[in-house]
Amino acid sequence: MLVLSSPSGAGKSTISKALLKSDADLTMSVSATTRPMRPGEVEGQDYYFIDQDTFEKMIQADEFLEHATVFENSYGTPKGPVEATLREGRDVLFDVDWQGTQELERNARNDLVSIFILPPSIEELERRLHGRAQDSEEVVRKRMSKATSEMSHWNEYDYIIVNEDVDISVARVEAILTAERLKRTRQSGMVDFVRAMGVSQ
Amino acid sequence: MLVLSSPSGAGKSTISKALLKSDADLTMSVSATTRPMRPGEVEGQDYYFIDQDTFEKMIQADEFLEHATVFENSYGTPKGPVEATLREGRDVLFDVDWQGTQELERNARNDLVSIFILPPSIEELERRLHGRAQDSEEVVRKRMSKATSEMSHWNEYDYIIVNEDVDISVARVEAILTAERLKRTRQSGMVDFVRAMGVSQ
Repeated sequence: MLVLSSPSGAGKSTISKALLKSDADLTMSVSATTRPMRPGEVEGQDYYFIDQDTFEKMIQADEFLEHATVFENSYGTPKGPVEATLREGRDVLFDVDWQGTQELERNARNDLVSIFILPPSIEELERRLHGRAQDSEEVVRKRMSKATSEMSHWNEYDYIIVNEDVDISVARVEAILTAERLKRTRQSGMVDFVRAMGVSQ
Repeated sequence: MLVLSSPSGAGKSTISKALLKSDADLTMSVSATTRPMRPGEVEGQDYYFIDQDTFEKMIQADEFLEHATVFENSYGTPKGPVEATLREGRDVLFDVDWQGTQELERNARNDLVSIFILPPSIEELERRLHGRAQDSEEVVRKRMSKATSEMSHWNEYDYIIVNEDVDISVARVEAILTAERLKRTRQSGMVDFVRAMGVSQ
C-alpha cells in the first residue's frame, strides 16, 4: 500500500499518472463518494458513486479503510477492492491527505509506505496555484493557506520528495517501490526459497 | 552506511565494483589487516597493512567499527576514514560477513542499511564455486558448507536480493540507495527547507 500526499499544486496527479503507466504491478485505489457524477467521469474508474444511505451503511459495516466528509460530500476507500488487489500480489496507490494517511496507517497492518511530495519552493507553488485558472487573489490566498496547512504534516511520512522535475520525481517513487519490494519482511516466499537451497535457520 | 553480505560465489564483488563505478556518492570502506601485502595490492586502497601490535592498540583505543580474526590474520574497519566520509555527506559501502554486519549495527547509530545477496539456486552457486579454479571436490565441498552457513544469516538483513542477473541486481541496490536517501529521517536539511516555505510544525 503506497500513499502519495502533497499540497494541491505540488505535482502529485502528474506523478501518479506516470507511475500507473510505467508500473504494471501498481493499481490506483478507487474511492467511493456521495457527490454527484460530473460529465466525463466513469463509475468504478474515477469513483464509485453511491448515495449517503449506502455510505452510512458501509461505515457501520466497517467497510472503509478510511473515510472523510469534505464540503457536505463524503469520500471513502472501500476495503474490498484494495484487499482483492493485494491478494493478487499487486500494490495499491492511494491519493489521500494527511488525515486519510493516518487512518490508513491505523488499518494497514504495517503494510503502508507513505511519501510526501513537496513543491521546490513556496514561490513555485504559488505560481502553479495561480496558473490553474483566472482566480481572484482571495481564492489563491485560500488555496495557499490550505497548502501550507497540508504541508505542516510532511514529518508524518516515511519518505519526502521535493518535486523539482516530474521525471526525476517519478523515478524516485519507482526506486522507493523497488526498494520496499526488496525488503526481507515483504519477501514472503524467501523462507521456502532459502530452505530449498538446504540452508538451515 | 551500506552493507553488502553474501556467500562467496553469489556475485557480490561484481555488484560492488559496478556500484562504486556508477554512484559517485558511494565510497568503499578500506579495512585494516595484519596479513602480508600480496603482489599488486596497494596500501590504503586494497587494505591498510598494519602489524599485529598496531592492530591490538587500535582495538584497545576503540578505533574499529568491527574487527575479526580469520586464519591467524586480523581484519578490521577503522572508524576514522568512515566517519570522515560520512561527514562529507557521502555514503560508505562495506563488504563484511554476518558477524561484521552485527558488529557494525551495534556501532552504527541506526545509520546502517544491510543487503544480503543470494545466489539464484544452490546448483548455480556450486557451479560458480567450481568455476573458480581446478579445485578438488573436497575443497569445493568445504566452500559450499561455508556458503550455506553464511546464508543461514539471510534473515538478519534489511533487504534481500536474489542475484540472477548482475545488471538487475546493481539496479536494485541503486534503488535501495535512492530510497534510503529519500527517507524523511535521513533528510536532515528538510526541517529548514520547510520552515523557509513558511510551514509551521
